[in-house]
Amino acid sequence: MYRSHTCGELRLRDEGKQVKLAGWVDRIRDLGGVKFIVLRDRYGKTQVVVNPDSPAYSIVNSISREDVINVEGTVRARPKEAVTSDPTGEIEVLAEKIEILSKSELPPFYPGDDVSEEMRLKYRYLDLRNPKMANNLIIRHKMAFHAREFLTNQGFLEIETPYLTKSTPEGARDFLVPSRLKKWNFYALPQSPQLFKQILMIGGMDRYFQIVRCFRDEDLRADRQPEFTQIDIEMSFVHMEDVLELAENLIRYIYSKVGIQLPEKFDRIPYEEAMEKYGSDKPDRRYGMELQDLTNYFTNTQFKIVADVLNNGGFVKGFKTNIPMSRKIADEYSEFVKAFGLGGVLWFKIENGQITSTTAKYLEKEYTEISKAFEMKEGDVLILAAHSNRERLNEALGALRLKIGKEHFKVEGYDAMWIIDFPFLEWSEEENRFVARHHPFTMPYVEDLESGVELSKIRAHAYDMVINGFEVGGGSIRIHRKDIQEKVFDIIGLTKEEMEEKFGFFLEALKYGVPPHGGIAFGLDRLVTIAAGADSIREVIAFPKTSSGTCLLTNAPSPVSQRQLDELGISLKQ
Amino acid sequence: MYRSHTCGELRLRDEGKQVKLAGWVDRIRDLGGVKFIVLRDRYGKTQVVVNPDSPAYSIVNSISREDVINVEGTVRARPKEAVTSDPTGEIEVLAEKIEILSKSELPPFYPGDDVSEEMRLKYRYLDLRNPKMANNLIIRHKMAFHAREFLTNQGFLEIETPYLTKSTPEGARDFLVPSRLKKWNFYALPQSPQLFKQILMIGGMDRYFQIVRCFRDEDLRADRQPEFTQIDIEMSFVHMEDVLELAENLIRYIYSKVGIQLPEKFDRIPYEEAMEKYGSDKPDRRYGMELQDLTNYFTNTQFKIVADVLNNGGFVKGFKTNIPMSRKIADEYSEFVKAFGLGGVLWFKIENGQITSTTAKYLEKEYTEISKAFEMKEGDVLILAAHSNRERLNEALGALRLKIGKEHFKVEGYDAMWIIDFPFLEWSEEENRFVARHHPFTMPYVEDLESGVELSKIRAHAYDMVINGFEVGGGSIRIHRKDIQEKVFDIIGLTKEEMEEKFGFFLEALKYGVPPHGGIAFGLDRLVTIAAGADSIREVIAFPKTSSGTCLLTNAPSPVSQRQLDELGISLKQ
Repeated sequence: MYRSHTCGELRLRDEGKQVKLAGWVDRIRDLGGVKFIVLRDRYGKTQVVVNPDSPAYSIVNSISREDVINVEGTVRARPKEAVTSDPTGEIEVLAEKIEILSKSELPPFYPGDDVSEEMRLKYRYLDLRNPKMANNLIIRHKMAFHAREFLTNQGFLEIETPYLTKSTPEGARDFLVPSRLKKWNFYALPQSPQLFKQILMIGGMDRYFQIVRCFRDEDLRADRQPEFTQIDIEMSFVHMEDVLELAENLIRYIYSKVGIQLPEKFDRIPYEEAMEKYGSDKPDRRYGMELQDLTNYFTNTQFKIVADVLNNGGFVKGFKTNIPMSRKIADEYSEFVKAFGLGGVLWFKIENGQITSTTAKYLEKEYTEISKAFEMKEGDVLILAAHSNRERLNEALGALRLKIGKEHFKVEGYDAMWIIDFPFLEWSEEENRFVARHHPFTMPYVEDLESGVELSKIRAHAYDMVINGFEVGGGSIRIHRKDIQEKVFDIIGLTKEEMEEKFGFFLEALKYGVPPHGGIAFGLDRLVTIAAGADSIREVIAFPKTSSGTCLLTNAPSPVSQRQLDELGISLKQ
Repeated sequence: MYRSHTCGELRLRDEGKQVKLAGWVDRIRDLGGVKFIVLRDRYGKTQVVVNPDSPAYSIVNSISREDVINVEGTVRARPKEAVTSDPTGEIEVLAEKIEILSKSELPPFYPGDDVSEEMRLKYRYLDLRNPKMANNLIIRHKMAFHAREFLTNQGFLEIETPYLTKSTPEGARDFLVPSRLKKWNFYALPQSPQLFKQILMIGGMDRYFQIVRCFRDEDLRADRQPEFTQIDIEMSFVHMEDVLELAENLIRYIYSKVGIQLPEKFDRIPYEEAMEKYGSDKPDRRYGMELQDLTNYFTNTQFKIVADVLNNGGFVKGFKTNIPMSRKIADEYSEFVKAFGLGGVLWFKIENGQITSTTAKYLEKEYTEISKAFEMKEGDVLILAAHSNRERLNEALGALRLKIGKEHFKVEGYDAMWIIDFPFLEWSEEENRFVARHHPFTMPYVEDLESGVELSKIRAHAYDMVINGFEVGGGSIRIHRKDIQEKVFDIIGLTKEEMEEKFGFFLEALKYGVPPHGGIAFGLDRLVTIAAGADSIREVIAFPKTSSGTCLLTNAPSPVSQRQLDELGISLKQ
């Protein structure tokens, strides 16, 4: 036995016990000849005292930080003045015997030191010794475990789907795996188990879940990883309401297990409304500052720039806030919205009871009316903009709203909601065709499909869960009719041959009795990041990759031998 | 709501209730104008009765097997003569309304039909509707879930390790994944998370587990899959005893959760003893027939073939059984052992109280002594063989023992044990060097290493768990000292440069304070196969691959586009 207790376990009630501890040397101090070692493991820290008359004393001088040692000794109460608020802060262990299990060379940094993320990833094992990092992984474990517990109690089966599967280049780019046994053929790593979970429903499995790794070979943006983890769920014989209720209860449950109370009921906000109010389909409402339609106040404006926009069928929108405002700041915001295609922002504030703005002289009437309508008080600021395209206007102001929110307001608590009634399709400039906004297996509103409404107006039985401005999950009711599935493939531009080649097996499966079904997938990395209050998903992944897809610990990816390439029948193309 | 109850839920206590069911049409019969539909879902089957006067009657004629339908009606007790032992066998639902949710075309087979495995895999969704298949997946879910529950309660954290990792071609062949962002470099899919879990121990995570997919690009033998699932475990500050106890409790627990009682204490059998008694390191002891050393009975034999072997320093071993025996059968067994390099088998049986054998006239004295020593009774048979190489003799007789066992005896119950004290190394004819038998991170017996004993005799702190003749798990105490790790790499023939290139990051990690640690990995597929009493691991995997690595459902692997290859900078080598 290396230990009788962990380093986080001993309390005053253990006084007098003979104990054995093992762990890393966190700190070592000499106070008047007496040596104090803080011993650390995943469970906590315990102070070890080595008196000059202890048989263990001789070894102490050869001990250094991050050595792994074994300590035998007796638990005693600390003197009153040495008691701390640490869980083990009322006791210490008087060492009788110390053994060095593993010496540490001088490490490149100590756990918790403020070093670059690059260093932390290269020496991840040192970084993980930081209790904060360990705690993130503990939170992650708890959330995953309790998700499984919750779903199991609800009659769901966790069913494993293949990682070596078929390349279906609809959506993001696949990672490919060359097959050796079937030369010049490739597996793809799954972007999600979408079709497999639908096949499981067709196979009668009724309620499926899986906490599963997914893969996307994308150019990595700030907070993306080439592999990420989903809580993947699918249910048969359900309507949207059933999925939403189950999913909401699940997320509330797993957050409660890490001490976070989410709202009793998540609001449901139609996509259109979210875009109108927040210019975003993943709003963080904690910042307030809802976008308002101000077009009416400018119907007769003389201010040419705005009048031109309105004559063009355009709109004016804005939001109220109370940040410091100046011409300089307004210039910055104008630059910001120009990236979205807007001309700039207008603004005014209430200062000394007066409307104050660089444009006040041109727009005093309009500003005054607005300030009354919105009951603006001293210090309040209104930021507004005009544009002919309402979507673009919403998006630009939504982004500005969020920028201001993050820069000026510290928000707390948890804002959780559903966004529903998404558009079924979106136009892809790149591919010059409509693509499925969620994915092509999502059930469109059949009444929209049949009413002959324009394609961009067809709504989908799709829903996203949003917490604190992050899309943490999304799902839909699926198409369970072959005729609708083929119609959708047709709308997004697949020929009969492409349908057959890419999705033939799935269309075949739709022939033999398909239950109505739907589901959702949550991003576990994101859920944990929010719960842990971490800045990045890399803080809640044990071994994340950099934005170039490199593992700094192992140096993957790396070159392979010619023999390996030969066996696969591939060569590097110079 | 599609349903108020599942198809396995209704009982006599529900009599009179208005219910709504949904499911697949399992059977449909007409008895004197009354239609009987057996409705099926994952939870069971319920009989639905449609009387000619029911408003639902008109639709019944258009219903066929495997249609998905919705039924509304009233629960009623079946007439006594129609009661069955099925869980819902005391009731039926008198239909008032039926809606077809999804028509099924005539399927290629019905769930449970006796069709080829190829057909079952191609139409896996039909196959999964067979309650036996669903039950296998339910057992799998339970075993995985309760493994997580058990380990979580023991303070283990499930920590996800990367699937896109570094190729370390020690062991089996890696599946490779070309990197697009770092052109001409490759990730490898993990054969196991071995180094990551050791890094986690070095990072102080203390107790890790993961139910994790692993990948081996091997030529697939009968019951192997290119991707398989491990229950992977690692613990710090432990000796072998701690790992064995934890692992044994875990496996006993998850089997108990699917109704199987494993022995209270698993025997521990040193590798040498297993080889001596069963000629196998994964014996199935339920067959009895332990191998016996019979050399002593032949010291003075006149029978030339045996005498020659003994003069060559050889051995005679054999085992007792009670199968029918004849010259013809003996010839077959002789052929069988020749494949192992033996000359053939000898045998005798007790028939009418006499020693009977084709060789009785040459070996009467020896056979008589043996029959007395082993208290052979009427009908008993002894099969024996001689060879100069004891390992080969054990192996051949062990294989013959197992063949006879499987052909002649139906065994029941569960035989579970540990095999311990494995040899650390084994000679690889292919590579002309010693390779690590378990893996090169296994701690050898340091006393063996330092005693200068020959390399093949060094023992390892390694252990396998064996249930019913299958190796279900294996593990070891790991090397936590850099000097020993380097010595082991040296023994298996790695140069300093190769060590650095393949394992440099790991040797670096061993510098900074490493806890003594060890672990084990279980094959979940195998554990479930045994628990489900299935013939093959393919019966407990939702979407298995064929022996050529093909998914018959999706047709993966498949060709990819030139554009995909170009993006990866690789080409197919003609």
